[in-house]
Amino acid sequence: MTDASCPYCNGPGGRLLWSDARCRVILIDDAPFAGLCRVVWNGHVRELTDLGEADRAHLFAVLAATERGVRDLLQPAKINLAALGTAMPHLHWHVIPLYPDDSHFPEPIWAAPQRAATPRKLPQDFPAVLGKVLAEKLGAAPAVA
Amino acid sequence: MTDASCPYCNGPGGRLLWSDARCRVILIDDAPFAGLCRVVWNGHVRELTDLGEADRAHLFAVLAATERGVRDLLQPAKINLAALGTAMPHLHWHVIPLYPDDSHFPEPIWAAPQRAATPRKLPQDFPAVLGKVLAEKLGAAPAVA
Repeated sequence: MTDASCPYCNGPGGRLLWSDARCRVILIDDAPFAGLCRVVWNGHVRELTDLGEADRAHLFAVLAATERGVRDLLQPAKINLAALGTAMPHLHWHVIPLYPDDSHFPEPIWAAPQRAATPRKLPQDFPAVLGKVLAEKLGAAPAVA
Repeated sequence: MTDASCPYCNGPGGRLLWSDARCRVILIDDAPFAGLCRVVWNGHVRELTDLGEADRAHLFAVLAATERGVRDLLQPAKINLAALGTAMPHLHWHVIPLYPDDSHFPEPIWAAPQRAATPRKLPQDFPAVLGKVLAEKLGAAPAVA
């Protein structure tokens, strides 16, 4: 099922790191929170519990593998996970690495900023390495060579 | 493992609806977003991926059952799910039912409000019924008679 007006139905929605037939992991390039990834269900599904049990388990395995990979590679102070999508109801999870000098820390990234943003550069090989880590853990080919 | 300064280690953290040895579901009474529940891991664990695979699967089953129960009982326009805990790193998930006349809709509840809050009353039997639904789905006894 797809929705012609939905950005997640009309393209990957970010830099594709890994995908299989059911879902994908993307990196939001140039996000104010460097390393922010999203786990996106490929079909235009509104809520987590619109998925059957096997699909939910798969999505959770991908979510956990993404959190693990982001933690191992970036060693953030905290991870935030969220499936919101109220304005864009296509099931996707934010995986957000946070650091004490982030603009919003320790508040959620949707709250008012606490200070000016700290520029932070990702390791250049982060997309390729995370894609490889996900492929090793989850099967299917990484999207980034 | 517990932390003496952590509110989730020193009490349920809200009205207890259901629990087993590993985790619990609480209702935040008088939350500005009526029906806001939290799925709280009983141990003082920081991140989802600090749990082993079986514990993660259990937590996800409880999270999905809670979302399903809240949807069935309250029929919100959208559910938001989030594990943040940056300021309070004891693993807990928000399960937030949202309606178009909510103060923040369609923005996340941590963002700036869009309008004045709409008072909304939960059905009086919501805590007891959700506790029963969770016990039927997950086993273990409901916490609310």
